[in-house]
Amino acid sequence: MNTTPTQTKPFRFSLSQLLFGKPIATRDLEHQNVNRIVGLAVFASDALSSTAYATEEILFILALAGTSSAVLGISIPLSIAIAVLLTIVTISYRQTIYAYPNGGGAYIVARDNLGEVAAQIAGAALLTDYILTVAVSISSGVAQIASAFPVLLPFRVEIALLVILIMTLVNLRGVKESGTIFAIPTYFFLITMLLTLLVGLYRYFAGTLGVVTGVEMVETGTVQALTLFLILRAFSSGSAALTGIEAISNGITAFKEPRSHNAAVTLQWMSGILITIFLSITFLAHQIHAVPSEAETIISQLGRVIFGNGSILYLAIVAGTALILLMAANTSYADFPRLAALHAGDGFLPRQLTFRGGRLVFNWGVVTLATMASLLVIVMNARTTALIPLYAIGVFLSFTISQTGMVVRLRKIGRLKPGEKIQGLETVMAYDPRWRLKMVISGLGAVCTGIVMLIFAVTKFTSGAWFVILLIPVLVLAFFRVHHHYKAVARNLSLEKNGHDITTHPVQTVVLVDGVHAGTVDLVNFAKSLKHPWHAVHIGINPEKASKVSALWDAVIGEGELVVVPSPYRQLNRPIRTYIENLLLENPDTIVHVVVGHLAMETAWEQALHQNSVLIFNLALNGLERVVLTIVPHQIHRHQTEEGVVDRNVFTPADLRSN
Amino acid sequence: MNTTPTQTKPFRFSLSQLLFGKPIATRDLEHQNVNRIVGLAVFASDALSSTAYATEEILFILALAGTSSAVLGISIPLSIAIAVLLTIVTISYRQTIYAYPNGGGAYIVARDNLGEVAAQIAGAALLTDYILTVAVSISSGVAQIASAFPVLLPFRVEIALLVILIMTLVNLRGVKESGTIFAIPTYFFLITMLLTLLVGLYRYFAGTLGVVTGVEMVETGTVQALTLFLILRAFSSGSAALTGIEAISNGITAFKEPRSHNAAVTLQWMSGILITIFLSITFLAHQIHAVPSEAETIISQLGRVIFGNGSILYLAIVAGTALILLMAANTSYADFPRLAALHAGDGFLPRQLTFRGGRLVFNWGVVTLATMASLLVIVMNARTTALIPLYAIGVFLSFTISQTGMVVRLRKIGRLKPGEKIQGLETVMAYDPRWRLKMVISGLGAVCTGIVMLIFAVTKFTSGAWFVILLIPVLVLAFFRVHHHYKAVARNLSLEKNGHDITTHPVQTVVLVDGVHAGTVDLVNFAKSLKHPWHAVHIGINPEKASKVSALWDAVIGEGELVVVPSPYRQLNRPIRTYIENLLLENPDTIVHVVVGHLAMETAWEQALHQNSVLIFNLALNGLERVVLTIVPHQIHRHQTEEGVVDRNVFTPADLRSN
Repeated sequence: MNTTPTQTKPFRFSLSQLLFGKPIATRDLEHQNVNRIVGLAVFASDALSSTAYATEEILFILALAGTSSAVLGISIPLSIAIAVLLTIVTISYRQTIYAYPNGGGAYIVARDNLGEVAAQIAGAALLTDYILTVAVSISSGVAQIASAFPVLLPFRVEIALLVILIMTLVNLRGVKESGTIFAIPTYFFLITMLLTLLVGLYRYFAGTLGVVTGVEMVETGTVQALTLFLILRAFSSGSAALTGIEAISNGITAFKEPRSHNAAVTLQWMSGILITIFLSITFLAHQIHAVPSEAETIISQLGRVIFGNGSILYLAIVAGTALILLMAANTSYADFPRLAALHAGDGFLPRQLTFRGGRLVFNWGVVTLATMASLLVIVMNARTTALIPLYAIGVFLSFTISQTGMVVRLRKIGRLKPGEKIQGLETVMAYDPRWRLKMVISGLGAVCTGIVMLIFAVTKFTSGAWFVILLIPVLVLAFFRVHHHYKAVARNLSLEKNGHDITTHPVQTVVLVDGVHAGTVDLVNFAKSLKHPWHAVHIGINPEKASKVSALWDAVIGEGELVVVPSPYRQLNRPIRTYIENLLLENPDTIVHVVVGHLAMETAWEQALHQNSVLIFNLALNGLERVVLTIVPHQIHRHQTEEGVVDRNVFTPADLRSN
Repeated sequence: MNTTPTQTKPFRFSLSQLLFGKPIATRDLEHQNVNRIVGLAVFASDALSSTAYATEEILFILALAGTSSAVLGISIPLSIAIAVLLTIVTISYRQTIYAYPNGGGAYIVARDNLGEVAAQIAGAALLTDYILTVAVSISSGVAQIASAFPVLLPFRVEIALLVILIMTLVNLRGVKESGTIFAIPTYFFLITMLLTLLVGLYRYFAGTLGVVTGVEMVETGTVQALTLFLILRAFSSGSAALTGIEAISNGITAFKEPRSHNAAVTLQWMSGILITIFLSITFLAHQIHAVPSEAETIISQLGRVIFGNGSILYLAIVAGTALILLMAANTSYADFPRLAALHAGDGFLPRQLTFRGGRLVFNWGVVTLATMASLLVIVMNARTTALIPLYAIGVFLSFTISQTGMVVRLRKIGRLKPGEKIQGLETVMAYDPRWRLKMVISGLGAVCTGIVMLIFAVTKFTSGAWFVILLIPVLVLAFFRVHHHYKAVARNLSLEKNGHDITTHPVQTVVLVDGVHAGTVDLVNFAKSLKHPWHAVHIGINPEKASKVSALWDAVIGEGELVVVPSPYRQLNRPIRTYIENLLLENPDTIVHVVVGHLAMETAWEQALHQNSVLIFNLALNGLERVVLTIVPHQIHRHQTEEGVVDRNVFTPADLRSN
């Protein structure tokens, strides 16, 4: 084996490089090593950003039963219930972080403990949800901005699409410096939000907190009864606050050693902050009599009451919230392509998703995510409330599967003897005396999130959840179809099955000839150089032209036989295929080597002026065994003229009429 | 030379055949032989249909100066002036018909007498106008229908696009039986229109003709002064009535012998009928106080007053008018592709426009026409009045050029001696004692249509004509660019310039290898069968994979050298090109024969799951001399499995986890 170094040419100026930067070599693929402060910034934006809409979505549902303080006040116990759920999930996920120090996403944990089907379901659910995260976060972010600048309200869809486009370009360029860049908006949000809540609570206790006025309340139609169903529906809408909590368990490898410990501490901090902000917003929103509105978000209403309309601090809290929402969308740009590449690597999605582009980014994944999220934004008119019923089912499904996987794993560990270790697919399982307690915690988490998912599915079925409930099995089916295909191809290509004797065959060369010109001379030169028996074939679409070509062949080439195959229906593909099929029948052991010319132009515009029949021949010969197709290019140079005169006079009628 | 008959396979069921019918053999290309009755039906629809909007467009412009009877009454002298113009053009075109018995379209006459530049200008003008004919006729036809059924008014664009789509499909199928099919709607229109006008005139003279009421008048803004400019603008709008008058001179060959005589008589009849209908409509429209309206056409207003709203005869005249308009659009579907094929045959448009599809139709021309007309309908909102300023300039430009060509031709004839003949490009020119009179007639026609064209250009410049005035020179320039390209290619391919010695070269085979599998064995078998020096190359995007491939190569293939070319930036194209370029430098006289494998799937969906790098290699090697590329396909059969069991169990987790 020989290794030749590649000569790296100086790169020419290109739009691609201007937009995406210079290519990065594979060896520069690095692992980040972030501390807890930066880690919180990187991984918390998705989770923290959901506080921007969770309270609002609870109020939207409760408002269907009227806008009295008593009804909207139910938001407070609902938020406490959600906080309890969040605590359970946090404790359960701490265990996953310690068990899977190399990354414990739902897909990995499911594949490791529950098998491919569970893993594919978890993956399909998560991929769906990552798309929704982009759509929901950007829609909500644009809504925050439009609350401060109502003039933008009619352009919400356009702005959201523009944001997705910019985010896609940035992510195709790759975000190497992500850590520090992420820290700024996350901590800006945290500081402004905590300040807002502190001032708000202070003014509440001081009795100077006013109430919000001038908000255009959402239209709810006739008032419904305050049923348990409605309350559960409000609860499930608010549970969107839990989305993003799994981010740290996916990204453990990004932390400094001791990884698991640092990740676990960061997770606890994140949950604590999330619960604090979420409960405070719900409490204060109730005190200022905030109302759900299509035109102004709850955060904007809070900011307005606490800091006064148009004040710097009001603008800061709105900007901070919009920023954290964009950051949250951006995390999906990391998570979706990575998870899709995992699926593709296991053969459940097209292989192309595993290719890293010039900037080491999974380009196909980024583009797929952006396309799907844009479609969702267009269809749903960039309305957060319309997207929420589709959202979070996927996350809760993956929570349930992941924690169920942990239960299965802990039961296996429970069967080990003290000191014993066994090798799982991903990690080593060692005896653990506290396996029973841990299993109960994971089991509790699985049951709770499972129940919430069912509440989701039932209470939101008609308002949009049906789509996701239908989509996930369809996706899983598609994943297995893809997998089946790759397995079939692997079987087809297996050397054991097909044998691998290297044998030679006689080769018969067939030159396809359209006319007789300099390109044809190239073709014949090549055919003769091959030193195998050869003849030429012309497809006679036009009988007059066929006679001319035959005569020219005899006069100019003067050797080799030219066969004219008539084509009464003016097709190229059928007559060629039939001719080659006959040739194969007559020569059972021979490889038929079809040689075609290709006039290569300097620009695509010029190329479009020619028939480019190579593609047609390629299709015509598709599926034939023992047939190979060779393309002999003949380069046409635009400025190759004998006398420059011809060029300059080309537009005068005299010159042209003589042609 | 040998001629092998093609085995024609029984055609399988296909969507294409269902839509377009079975292919037709080239020998079945027939010339029609129609008598005058059918000839009138085939060629008159375009001209006659313009009566549906000509009067209306005059009124639209006059209404800008107020809607008093005195102002709108100017439409009557304007229509008489247009009728005089039409008479002059008819007499002039009679002469063309006799001079060019094989078809005397403006393109042919201009090329024959004025040279390529004039011919290309005439052609560009006509092609533009054919597209506008489709857009105008279908928009007006839909407006007629919407006048009778106002509920359709908001869907005019959608209906117009649907009509274009259906017409495109019908024309891709080819209209063999055109003659008789055309006769029905044309004569239906003629009968209903003449009946309407007769009844209308009778009621006018009997004093029982009422006036129209309840029409939503078009909004005109502030009343303008009735300037000469405005009157000329109204005149030029009405001149749209002349469009289509040239159709017979294009289609002389379709007539029975004596062709020229039959065509000339049909032309006279057509002009007579056209003038009668046009003048009567203008006269009656004035009597019933018809007003220009976006919601109801003048024809509908006339029908309503004469026959009563909702009566059968009212519906008949509206239906007849809509039908003739659709027929007029349909004639462009014959004219545009035929003219485009003429241009393409002379090398001024892409060659593909000369290819006849399975149904002997110039498919590319039909699709181009449909696309452009659809775009116009969308941009102009299917409003006839918005399209009219763009319309008819092209036709009048081609009238002027064609008749100027006749003047040049007749001057040449005038220089002949009695009895003398000379051969022109298209026809023989013989001495004609009446050449002076004929030249004056053609000259008068040329001057009149030229003046009208200038009036058009000036009075409608700002309302849309600027676009066509700009477009035509751009098109002519593009045509000559295309022509220049084809000439350059012909020079490049010329055998005189390049010589045509058949020489052989040594061949060096390079096999590109991605992995080592059954497809690779095919590749190596072919490379060895070629019996030229060969080695293999692997582009090492992933160093680990490269080592594996090397090891497998040694173990399985065990002969031939495998060179690994590293690709640190994960590209395929650059490393290959650099490698081949080096090889070419090292072997100055050798043909480098690059052999690549291609995994061919049974469906496009499956194909999309693979990298299909053949295209990448093709681009990578683009422009290199002495390099040929061979594709060795390896067909993957979907259902090739050793044990059927694998297939059935593919969805169980147990089976999959063992993989």
